[in-house]
Amino acid sequence: MADVETRVFPIETLREFCTRVFLHLGVPKADAMKAADVLASADLRGIDSHGVARLHTYFDLLALGRINPAPEIKLVHSTLSTATVDGDNGLGLVVGPQANRMAMEMAEKAGSGWVSVRNTNHFGIAGYYVLQALERDLIGLAMTNSSKMVAPLWGAERMLGTNPIAVSFPGKEEPPIVIDMATCAVAYGKIEMARRRGKEIPTGWGIDSDGSVTTNPDDIVDGGALLPLGSDRERGGHKGYALAMMVDILSCMLSGANWGPFAPSFAVDNEIPSRSVGKGIGHFFGAIRIDGFIDTDSFKRQVDDYIRVLRATKPAPGTSGPLIPGDPEREAEKVRREEGIPLILPIVEDLRDISAKTGVPFD
Amino acid sequence: MADVETRVFPIETLREFCTRVFLHLGVPKADAMKAADVLASADLRGIDSHGVARLHTYFDLLALGRINPAPEIKLVHSTLSTATVDGDNGLGLVVGPQANRMAMEMAEKAGSGWVSVRNTNHFGIAGYYVLQALERDLIGLAMTNSSKMVAPLWGAERMLGTNPIAVSFPGKEEPPIVIDMATCAVAYGKIEMARRRGKEIPTGWGIDSDGSVTTNPDDIVDGGALLPLGSDRERGGHKGYALAMMVDILSCMLSGANWGPFAPSFAVDNEIPSRSVGKGIGHFFGAIRIDGFIDTDSFKRQVDDYIRVLRATKPAPGTSGPLIPGDPEREAEKVRREEGIPLILPIVEDLRDISAKTGVPFD
Repeated sequence: MADVETRVFPIETLREFCTRVFLHLGVPKADAMKAADVLASADLRGIDSHGVARLHTYFDLLALGRINPAPEIKLVHSTLSTATVDGDNGLGLVVGPQANRMAMEMAEKAGSGWVSVRNTNHFGIAGYYVLQALERDLIGLAMTNSSKMVAPLWGAERMLGTNPIAVSFPGKEEPPIVIDMATCAVAYGKIEMARRRGKEIPTGWGIDSDGSVTTNPDDIVDGGALLPLGSDRERGGHKGYALAMMVDILSCMLSGANWGPFAPSFAVDNEIPSRSVGKGIGHFFGAIRIDGFIDTDSFKRQVDDYIRVLRATKPAPGTSGPLIPGDPEREAEKVRREEGIPLILPIVEDLRDISAKTGVPFD
Repeated sequence: MADVETRVFPIETLREFCTRVFLHLGVPKADAMKAADVLASADLRGIDSHGVARLHTYFDLLALGRINPAPEIKLVHSTLSTATVDGDNGLGLVVGPQANRMAMEMAEKAGSGWVSVRNTNHFGIAGYYVLQALERDLIGLAMTNSSKMVAPLWGAERMLGTNPIAVSFPGKEEPPIVIDMATCAVAYGKIEMARRRGKEIPTGWGIDSDGSVTTNPDDIVDGGALLPLGSDRERGGHKGYALAMMVDILSCMLSGANWGPFAPSFAVDNEIPSRSVGKGIGHFFGAIRIDGFIDTDSFKRQVDDYIRVLRATKPAPGTSGPLIPGDPEREAEKVRREEGIPLILPIVEDLRDISAKTGVPFD
């Protein structure tokens, strides 16, 4: 973002603002704080698209009554290690943390816990949830579906969300391995960035409205689609597509949420899906007790060893060698905790607009 | 394989031969039949590299005493939904099915079951295990590590196995969704095929021994490496790399097996890893009860609906539209059950060699 003008805010300023905005919209205090915490986590970790940049959409949807500010989150069904939760159309930022906690509590009793959630909304970054698992020495897993953006391999239209998968593993002396990845080749934000700069994009990122590969970011925005991880048949695009389906099924079909092209749109002014096949969108959370398998301490030492061995890989030309998943986000967090969160001006304007509409002071 | 000379054998001939070879090598009858069944499943499903094509390697390793023909497979540790298994250095084709059964039995009691396995060997196709789960109306999951073949993104050497992930979901009227994918961009078999034919390979498949992208298949064989799914940084190669790590950790670090570059080689004459960090290779099996979340019948109807909706996607130019994971393998199986299994001549020679050495008749 070096070439885009930004203003910098301390994370506490943003967190406080988000909390007060949610409160203003009828979200109970503890929930408002939790929701603000999930957004702050995205901004701290450098995932700018999922932090306060989205506050205006949450604001719109709450203000329009399309999201329930005070949901009664219900356990619908459960076994020793599995559960289905109905989020009562609450904020994903509130429903997600609660369902994730259920998964972790089940894991503590039964060795593992798996929770599928329906009737919920956008839950922020999947990485947030697996970081929570690390605090309890658990392996965490989180997935969610989202509104259609990605074509299945050999398809010419948007049918699937970017359907991210996050997984975390604790180290002992080394920082944890934190995987947080969309199942498409590239984030939509990168298309928007290229578009703003008038730059071409690499092949493999997306297709135009005819389903042909394109290097023009406008084509993807104007009726085209992102491609799944692997991009094309030769390079394994069927694999990214399969992973996106897995996320859909675990998050939506196990819970009774809207899958595939029928996931409700997150933005207020977007197309409304042609069918409803469930309630809201869906999430899936998992937690695994390490000592359900092996001594936790020796596991963590192995993870340390693994990280060191991989870092010592002979580097590819022009690189400093392999990173460990979670490295970029952890480095962003270190810088941003000290120096603050850089927001591009349109986001600052969004927040000012919310401030004007709610009376919650900003800036 | 249309341009390669083959001979065709009925699956029962191959299954019988494999069973008798395993028996000859001291594998107990039920185990020999099970192992032959896993191999037959690969040949039927068109995954030629993992069927009888590997019998000679299993034969060598058993004959040399490097694999235990009659392992005492032990449950090392367990909770309600998790377990660690020691395969006693048995055939993965024997240890895998038993550990997978434990996962399924746990799921039937606790809602889900998760088994990590150490001290085991190559287990055939991951898809076999998740097909077993479908027979019990369970969602199945299977993973394994394997000897090093794949470079981490930004690495210039082999550090990870092709580390496959399989997952299955049952439909009601539609056939099941069966995902079975290595976490690298392309199977090593495709490199070998291109090499045999003297053809170039696409960029994104692999690197040479300096870590540079190559289109010459010889470079990959001669000290180079496969690339992870996503291929390069721009197209999400860090994601395939992260998935391979996840497989390693669940399969090896939870069980106490050899991970990453230290996985023992499957072939007799390959390099021996520089360190031992555990026992054998590792697998990870999961089974999930659908009715631990939602009514099984309505789940299956949703899967049917999902399959039909995805098949109806507008096709990309030059394609007939998206496939469903498992389609190619199911179609291969249909043809091969009727017409037999085509084996290339070097594999036929391998089987004749085993026949000569064991006295088990073939051909």
